[in-house]
Amino acid sequence: MIKVGLLGCGTVGGGVYNILTTKKEDIERKLGEEIQIKRILVNEKNKKRKYDVDASLLTENYKEIIEDPEIQLVVELIGGETPTLGYIKEAINHHKNIVTANKLILAKYGREIFQLAKNNNVKVYYEGSVGGGIPIIKTLKESMIANKIGRIYGILNGTTNYILTQMTEKSIDFEDALKKAQSLGYAESDPYFDVSGLDCAYKISILSSLAFESFIDVNSIYVEGIDKIEREDIEIAEELGYTIKLLAIGKRYEDKMLDIRVHPTFIPKSNPLSKINGVYNVVQIHGDVVGDIMIYGQGAGEMPTASAVVADIMEAAKSIKYHIENEYSIGRLNGLKLIGTDEIENSFYIRLRVNDIPGVFAKIAKAFGDNEVSIASVIQKHRLNPVVPIFLLTHPIEEKKMKKAIDSLKELDDVIEIKNIIRVEDFNEKF
Amino acid sequence: MIKVGLLGCGTVGGGVYNILTTKKEDIERKLGEEIQIKRILVNEKNKKRKYDVDASLLTENYKEIIEDPEIQLVVELIGGETPTLGYIKEAINHHKNIVTANKLILAKYGREIFQLAKNNNVKVYYEGSVGGGIPIIKTLKESMIANKIGRIYGILNGTTNYILTQMTEKSIDFEDALKKAQSLGYAESDPYFDVSGLDCAYKISILSSLAFESFIDVNSIYVEGIDKIEREDIEIAEELGYTIKLLAIGKRYEDKMLDIRVHPTFIPKSNPLSKINGVYNVVQIHGDVVGDIMIYGQGAGEMPTASAVVADIMEAAKSIKYHIENEYSIGRLNGLKLIGTDEIENSFYIRLRVNDIPGVFAKIAKAFGDNEVSIASVIQKHRLNPVVPIFLLTHPIEEKKMKKAIDSLKELDDVIEIKNIIRVEDFNEKF
Repeated sequence: MIKVGLLGCGTVGGGVYNILTTKKEDIERKLGEEIQIKRILVNEKNKKRKYDVDASLLTENYKEIIEDPEIQLVVELIGGETPTLGYIKEAINHHKNIVTANKLILAKYGREIFQLAKNNNVKVYYEGSVGGGIPIIKTLKESMIANKIGRIYGILNGTTNYILTQMTEKSIDFEDALKKAQSLGYAESDPYFDVSGLDCAYKISILSSLAFESFIDVNSIYVEGIDKIEREDIEIAEELGYTIKLLAIGKRYEDKMLDIRVHPTFIPKSNPLSKINGVYNVVQIHGDVVGDIMIYGQGAGEMPTASAVVADIMEAAKSIKYHIENEYSIGRLNGLKLIGTDEIENSFYIRLRVNDIPGVFAKIAKAFGDNEVSIASVIQKHRLNPVVPIFLLTHPIEEKKMKKAIDSLKELDDVIEIKNIIRVEDFNEKF
Repeated sequence: MIKVGLLGCGTVGGGVYNILTTKKEDIERKLGEEIQIKRILVNEKNKKRKYDVDASLLTENYKEIIEDPEIQLVVELIGGETPTLGYIKEAINHHKNIVTANKLILAKYGREIFQLAKNNNVKVYYEGSVGGGIPIIKTLKESMIANKIGRIYGILNGTTNYILTQMTEKSIDFEDALKKAQSLGYAESDPYFDVSGLDCAYKISILSSLAFESFIDVNSIYVEGIDKIEREDIEIAEELGYTIKLLAIGKRYEDKMLDIRVHPTFIPKSNPLSKINGVYNVVQIHGDVVGDIMIYGQGAGEMPTASAVVADIMEAAKSIKYHIENEYSIGRLNGLKLIGTDEIENSFYIRLRVNDIPGVFAKIAKAFGDNEVSIASVIQKHRLNPVVPIFLLTHPIEEKKMKKAIDSLKELDDVIEIKNIIRVEDFNEKF
């Protein structure tokens, strides 16, 4: 019998408890071993809960779990940083294996936690931390074990994907789409963590650390949110054959560096990623042997995450039962450094407001040409006022050259405003 | 050290050999154990091979592998039924674990092989048998272990998906698309096995046997190929908002029976399955906890399949090293029976050729109405001859009632021909 301690009994924790109790027989048959929840840490023992939890299991003292020598596996579903980080470290120091869905802690303290786990000869499982029920960690660790991973693309945040989908399908503004997401419970009342792209940055740092075997410092990832996207950008993207998504990108760069970024991105409509709508998440991975694999599913929510956590519990239980040492342990061998966005080559979409006078476009074209930026297409919408919006799509160019071209544009009297600049992903790399 | 015997060194076998030798260090680091290919069965030792294979490993005598007491794992990549089935059974009787990508043998003799493996206390791994590099078996067995699987939808055959994609995108006929597929090596010179839907039937029987824990007899699956699909069907599907795909379906039916089928299917364009084009494969699974998961990748080809086989070899090696008994063994507990298509409710698309005279549509509508079939939409294309094509879409109706309606139609003098009947999948089940 494997004895388990649960930290937290909220939405995901309650879901995990519910699955482990209602599907007990089925799980034991598949595993060949009983899993027993011995104790559950809660804030308040007498609080009303969604699921009927055996009250005798509840405790308000984390030490009753972490210091119990019978408990071999601690499942952390409290979330947040404090006091969770302390609990996890203390549990590892007491030689407990860990299952967690805590992206914050893994992204910020992953290096420390995995080292501590190694020192204490225990393992840390984290399928639920990225992409909810999408089996992305297992796919990277096991199914793609024969592959060198070249790149990862992810739509990893359901809130922003819902907002962008609404803006695209219903032709509404960002603010209205955000309000709709909030009213449906898809966005928090303070949406900053999602809308700013930070949530995605945590997740791509976890995936990249695993896939490229190099710990990625989440603070050094370039992050841009979706709050500057306007309805006009989305309409023009459609017209040009693209869909705007908040894309998380992790790529090897010439085999010596890594290119990790999160930003709104023009995705060609021919790419299946452009069709992943609403609160769904998706990850597309390129391996040198298998080519492209894409996995899609519900990226968050109580039950999808609980499904991933239970799979981790089963994996951990198997590992404990059979004394498996080397859980395809990811070597963290390479100290691959991040490359700055300045060096990266992308096509760019640019939206300008200019004075509607003859010769203005020639000036813009010259500012680009002087900085080696070549224009792929231009859309000019005629309006009934002296100001005309211009939409440009460039050919691929290094970002630092693009920045110089933008600086030159800003010096032109007839360029009133540079409204938006969005990167275009062409998905045409050779591995 | 785990010693492995390879049966076959063709496209996939050569790919596996190549990965295991070129990535030897990486694989050993991840597994924590050396994997050694001890011997390789080939037809002809002196044949020229794509990869540089160590000639001292080659043998033309299968007994040198199957009877070698040092070899713990036999990797079968010969394909076909004879002599492969005999080799696999003999290897299991000699207590070898098996990795295979042989869908034919698993679908036809799976029950016997898994029983034999159980009796001999060895395991059979088969990720490469369905969907090439798509990690669908591991996802079903491990990642979705907390789930009761409600339904599986698969586009599981790259040849037919390529042909249908070409017909859709290029507006060409079946015969021309087939020729193009053959010229590119995506279709065999005798395309029967793919085009008839049989290949898909083997694959969905393997997936369903695993997901529903009931061995499915592949011969009792309803199978319909794509050779009757004409350009006109595809054009009308587009007009109605659908894409035609060869869909493999596995569903629980009222929790007591299973509904397993392979046939051309109208898929709404809003469903991501409709966007999976070309030689790509996709599987969409619904679990009661996690909701929908979709996995997509290259469904065939030397390297994607080799990637899956190497992942299985690693899994098997881990299992051997740590004496893992219960590989989440799938119980095969339920003896769920298949339900006949007559009982299944679908919407239907029907293409007719009728005499272009007043009142003909009223007669058709009556023939449907008399059999409880209600019409959802009608498209009538005007042509410059006395015959007019009519395209109908029905509301959902039991197939046996639909058949009666079709019989009534056939009795009408003005119905010249029933050109095609295609099922529509609405994807609106409640679990």
